[in-house]
Amino acid sequence: MRRILLFASSCALALLAISAAPAPGPVPQDQASLERSFDASIKAGEMGDSLKTLAAEPNHVGSPHDKQNADFILGLFKKFGWDTHIETFNVLYPTPISETVELLGPKPFKATLQEPNIPGDTTARAKQPALPAYLAFQGDGDVKAPLVYVNYGMRDDYKALERLGVDVKGKIVIVRYGSGWRGLKPLLAQQHGAVGCLIYSDPSDDGYSVDTAYPNGPARPARGFQRGSVMDMPIYPGDPLTPGVGSTQNAKRLDRAKAQTILKIPALPISYADAQVLLASLKGRVVPEGWRGRLPITYRVGPSEAQVHLVVKSDWSLKPIYDVIAMLKGSDYTNQWIVRGNHHDGWVHGATDPLSGQIALLAEAKALGELARQGWRPKRTIIYASWDGEEPALLGSTEWAETHAADLKRKALLYINTDANARGFLDVGGNHDFEHLVNQVANDVVDPETHVSIGQRHRAKARVDAMEPTSHDPETVERLKAEAKIAADPKRDFPIGALGSGSDYSTFLEHLGVPSLNLEFGEEGDSGGVYHSRYDTYEHHSRFVDPGFAYDALLAKTVGRLVMRAANSDLPLQQAGNFSDAVARYYGEIKKLAAEKHEKADTQAKLLADRGFQLAADPTKTSGPPTALKPVPKFELAPLENALERLKKSARAYDDAVRKNGASLNPQARARLQGLMQSIDQTLAPDGGLPGRPWFKNLVYAPGRFTGYGAKTLPGVREAIEDERWDDVNKYARLTANALNAYSVRLDQATAVLNGK
Amino acid sequence: MRRILLFASSCALALLAISAAPAPGPVPQDQASLERSFDASIKAGEMGDSLKTLAAEPNHVGSPHDKQNADFILGLFKKFGWDTHIETFNVLYPTPISETVELLGPKPFKATLQEPNIPGDTTARAKQPALPAYLAFQGDGDVKAPLVYVNYGMRDDYKALERLGVDVKGKIVIVRYGSGWRGLKPLLAQQHGAVGCLIYSDPSDDGYSVDTAYPNGPARPARGFQRGSVMDMPIYPGDPLTPGVGSTQNAKRLDRAKAQTILKIPALPISYADAQVLLASLKGRVVPEGWRGRLPITYRVGPSEAQVHLVVKSDWSLKPIYDVIAMLKGSDYTNQWIVRGNHHDGWVHGATDPLSGQIALLAEAKALGELARQGWRPKRTIIYASWDGEEPALLGSTEWAETHAADLKRKALLYINTDANARGFLDVGGNHDFEHLVNQVANDVVDPETHVSIGQRHRAKARVDAMEPTSHDPETVERLKAEAKIAADPKRDFPIGALGSGSDYSTFLEHLGVPSLNLEFGEEGDSGGVYHSRYDTYEHHSRFVDPGFAYDALLAKTVGRLVMRAANSDLPLQQAGNFSDAVARYYGEIKKLAAEKHEKADTQAKLLADRGFQLAADPTKTSGPPTALKPVPKFELAPLENALERLKKSARAYDDAVRKNGASLNPQARARLQGLMQSIDQTLAPDGGLPGRPWFKNLVYAPGRFTGYGAKTLPGVREAIEDERWDDVNKYARLTANALNAYSVRLDQATAVLNGK
Repeated sequence: MRRILLFASSCALALLAISAAPAPGPVPQDQASLERSFDASIKAGEMGDSLKTLAAEPNHVGSPHDKQNADFILGLFKKFGWDTHIETFNVLYPTPISETVELLGPKPFKATLQEPNIPGDTTARAKQPALPAYLAFQGDGDVKAPLVYVNYGMRDDYKALERLGVDVKGKIVIVRYGSGWRGLKPLLAQQHGAVGCLIYSDPSDDGYSVDTAYPNGPARPARGFQRGSVMDMPIYPGDPLTPGVGSTQNAKRLDRAKAQTILKIPALPISYADAQVLLASLKGRVVPEGWRGRLPITYRVGPSEAQVHLVVKSDWSLKPIYDVIAMLKGSDYTNQWIVRGNHHDGWVHGATDPLSGQIALLAEAKALGELARQGWRPKRTIIYASWDGEEPALLGSTEWAETHAADLKRKALLYINTDANARGFLDVGGNHDFEHLVNQVANDVVDPETHVSIGQRHRAKARVDAMEPTSHDPETVERLKAEAKIAADPKRDFPIGALGSGSDYSTFLEHLGVPSLNLEFGEEGDSGGVYHSRYDTYEHHSRFVDPGFAYDALLAKTVGRLVMRAANSDLPLQQAGNFSDAVARYYGEIKKLAAEKHEKADTQAKLLADRGFQLAADPTKTSGPPTALKPVPKFELAPLENALERLKKSARAYDDAVRKNGASLNPQARARLQGLMQSIDQTLAPDGGLPGRPWFKNLVYAPGRFTGYGAKTLPGVREAIEDERWDDVNKYARLTANALNAYSVRLDQATAVLNGK
Repeated sequence: MRRILLFASSCALALLAISAAPAPGPVPQDQASLERSFDASIKAGEMGDSLKTLAAEPNHVGSPHDKQNADFILGLFKKFGWDTHIETFNVLYPTPISETVELLGPKPFKATLQEPNIPGDTTARAKQPALPAYLAFQGDGDVKAPLVYVNYGMRDDYKALERLGVDVKGKIVIVRYGSGWRGLKPLLAQQHGAVGCLIYSDPSDDGYSVDTAYPNGPARPARGFQRGSVMDMPIYPGDPLTPGVGSTQNAKRLDRAKAQTILKIPALPISYADAQVLLASLKGRVVPEGWRGRLPITYRVGPSEAQVHLVVKSDWSLKPIYDVIAMLKGSDYTNQWIVRGNHHDGWVHGATDPLSGQIALLAEAKALGELARQGWRPKRTIIYASWDGEEPALLGSTEWAETHAADLKRKALLYINTDANARGFLDVGGNHDFEHLVNQVANDVVDPETHVSIGQRHRAKARVDAMEPTSHDPETVERLKAEAKIAADPKRDFPIGALGSGSDYSTFLEHLGVPSLNLEFGEEGDSGGVYHSRYDTYEHHSRFVDPGFAYDALLAKTVGRLVMRAANSDLPLQQAGNFSDAVARYYGEIKKLAAEKHEKADTQAKLLADRGFQLAADPTKTSGPPTALKPVPKFELAPLENALERLKKSARAYDDAVRKNGASLNPQARARLQGLMQSIDQTLAPDGGLPGRPWFKNLVYAPGRFTGYGAKTLPGVREAIEDERWDDVNKYARLTANALNAYSVRLDQATAVLNGK
């Protein structure tokens, strides 16, 4: 809403050497000493002070404090000796003008769409207003309709709703947060004919069931709610008006009405105090067990007799976002980049999300700056990025990466991301050929609570989780068991997860193919209850999420090691065997999925023919048979299976060759090897992309079209099976096989170099 | 509390022919016409009238209405033309004198231990007082101690509690109803050192989460609670003072202090309105997800800072119980008995439990009486029993069966039981060699809602349940799939369940070895919310459980057919193949259990050695490592495996022989065959019994020592593995093998007769 002069942002990245200050001590020579020196600069107390400053006021896109934070971060990078600048983009970002949620009829009720202050908390001290209840990129509207409850509002919930004999056409749906990404909830409501969507936080998921509510405990208070984006990011993230290109000042913009990623129906988040009144108004069948939250009411599916009135009106003007970019030029491989980022915009104060990760990033930058001041120089170039506008649509990272796509594809070896952080266990996702690098680092960082390495602690946890699973889901139980087996064998690398979306790695990994890692600590500190609420404050973070900032500091130490080792390694960073193992695992899942799909369609057809669903139904309650599943043909998966076999062989040969000959390569061979391996992961992201969403090019890793954040591996094939697009199954089996074969070809070339051929 | 003259109850059963009234119509000749005539006598309206009379006043043991009901039933049997009498036993049955549950400390609170009237409901019309909150055979006491929450209070919950770093020594535990039998909850609390036990009904399990609370819906109201027995019946049911013999007037009685089945600590049930206050007082860790109920509080494990004061004082005098026994003498096989029973005592009004089953029993007796009046006579003798005192300890059936044990072992072919009934699907448990008989009947009875047979509807349900399982537990999912496969094949008998305990079949099946069946309809009508409460009334049953008494009438039609077919069949009732299939299934489970036990002990030992549990624990929360599992040796299961193989062969041969030669047997051979098969199921219950509980003789079917109601099949072996009694595993593998071999020997002899050898 404030008018701001835009920086020219389409300029090429200028890689300037930092000005060398006089070295105050000797430069550490070996990696271990270097890392000890690095650690010595990480001060948890200082990090807490930064957090207090950054989280003092609401800092969402367009807020005064968002810009102040960008300037503050810029100042810090400068102070730390980095070459730094702010890169500004001008993006479509709607902000609320007016909004209403009310129950009409005999017992009228109006929802509160503001979160009250909490005495003693930042919220009570802040001078600037918080964004009210809002879901960015919802569709604006003024609708009146009966209400229907659809559990988490995911696809399976609509299938269950069909069996309950209820539909949402012309209705407003109310769904609860959880199970899948927020943005899919109003999208699926819209696709099923609903005219509006309310999302509430059930106490079962992050309220009083989980812990005492804030301020006496970490959990969500009765009047807290979760803001967030509902842009259809599984199509493409970033500015809806500039898909695939940076939204620089002169970029060609789509007409807003043509932007595919903006919702058509109005949607708002509400608190559970308000949701309770709306849910209690529902008639109809009692919901199935899995749909019951923990409000003290009988959850019914609806519809309500009384109508709900939902109004949202937004300001759809362009707004500026401020990415802070800082560089430390490499000494040897200047054109090889290690990029590391974390966003700085929050929904309100954003203390845990994203600022706990931001203070880790800043602490690393300080420590690296001090090493540089002592005369140390990374072999590769390091780029630190503090993104803006992640919350509404990964705006800062996407627009920057799209703007610098050509440079990044040529130069970026690895993107390392963090975001919110908490006390507990290391959680890493990323490309599996970087799994070994992650394991090495995890074995060298010491957990402050147990004084063993974070790797060892993670392994202990995996083994205990498999012995005491909290879920009975057979796939989860099986996966936990498999991981526990690996965890018990210190010679094997512990598997990292696959990345979907939900933070700034998405454009790097999935649009450009640049391999990415995402790291966080968690599970002990609890920020879920204030997630995207006004109560994600300095006080909440320091009392309940990471007291003493010990794990925020630990994140800095962990990521700092990754950055330094990645920047300094003379050999390629990838280990191929872990990647081929992961692909084999994912292919196994797909085979199983196909078999189950086949069996299910078959069984269902017989049951429909026998009127089984009618006979089993209670005639006194509404119900309906399920939509008939498509018969499942034989799939042509052979190309994929062959590519997998080839990958296994090539990976084994490459890893053996590195082990045998890696250390003794001459500089020319090393350069050829680096040239081959630098962009090998980009072979997985050929042009063409996924069906219906070509922006997503990676054929191994993608956010699910209908999971949003959750990863779908081998997505072209997997989602085609899930969605009954039989032609796409065979087509994407071939395309994915081609991508894997290209990876294998590159590996074989690298192996030849290693073996002196 | 009232003094009552006792009938002589040790007299032998006098089998008198009923006085033949003039036959008003022709006697149906074939079984189908007979059953049609039978059905014509079943009048749902009349059944509802009986229910209204029987459920008008509280009818627990010792109440005036309990005796009035016995006399009323006696009168009906007489009116129906049966030879009938009341058999009275004099049993230990404690009743409450005074009781208190209160929270001491800064916020004192006193629990309400009475359930309020509901206007328009029987409760408001009743003249006699209801039993207050009470758990029969708890231990009396006056204790003050902090409170600890232990979820469902089952064995796994205590293991989880250990991991949460909390113990219950010297504490009062509060647990919720569900997951396992009520009586185990205070028993396990006592075994773990607790000094008292409160059991409450969480709204999650049968309150507002499940449906609207009574009177507007079927679910448990906030001030309702579940009474019940907590006698240690897995040791032996019936009068604690007369194990193994009838508690007739002159029976030798144990000293009460020596009765093994009476609890030592005080225990009471409370409502969720009261439980909420107590649970909210708990400090300590937040409980794991699976422990959370649906009260609007943060469930914590405790202990509480404030003490809870629990007082129970009971009157431990002997009380009379009244079994009503009625007979219809057989024409051909007078000394072969078909016994059919249902209890008549409730905890309060007992409309659904047990009177809905009782009115079915009475309707059958009326219909059989009318057939008899027309000149029909069953070939075998039919005995109908309306038991008293089932609720406190299966008293009426146990004492009667113990009194008449010798006669029953010689003469009883089959015991058929019912208890509470509701609208919905047929559920049958029993000896698997009677599975075929049950299936035949289920295929001939028409469901009033869908107009297909109850067998066909049951099969449709099984197939839908397997497609849409509500549980993710792998064993459940696998079982549902296996059952669905059978359900889809009309040529195969649909499997019935195994019986554990919880109703009057226990003594017949598990003490005497007399094969038993237990039948009920359910899943659509809902009585769970008023179970054992004051609100299980005529109004509740007729509004929510079985409107129009259609399924109570259907139960009469179903059981009536079973009784008549069992009474009239010239061939043995058993089919052996289903039994050997069931044993094979159970043996497979035991093999799997043993393998899992082995793997778990192994994995846990390594994890303990690696300090894994400590490393994975959050050091800011209480926690503890688990108790080390015993290393698992190789078990000697070969005898059991061999016996199973033999059983399979013998069963196949027998069923083939029946098919080929059954119809053409001469009377002498038929008599020899009947002689062999009449008591074949008793071979499964040799003297000796289960470890630590010799009263339970059946080595194939038993209530679990630590599940209570839930069946444990092949219990000698299965429970020895579960409980780490390694010597018992091998010993009971041999004993169970012997029993199965004895069954096979008997089968082979029968096969020889059938094959004319």
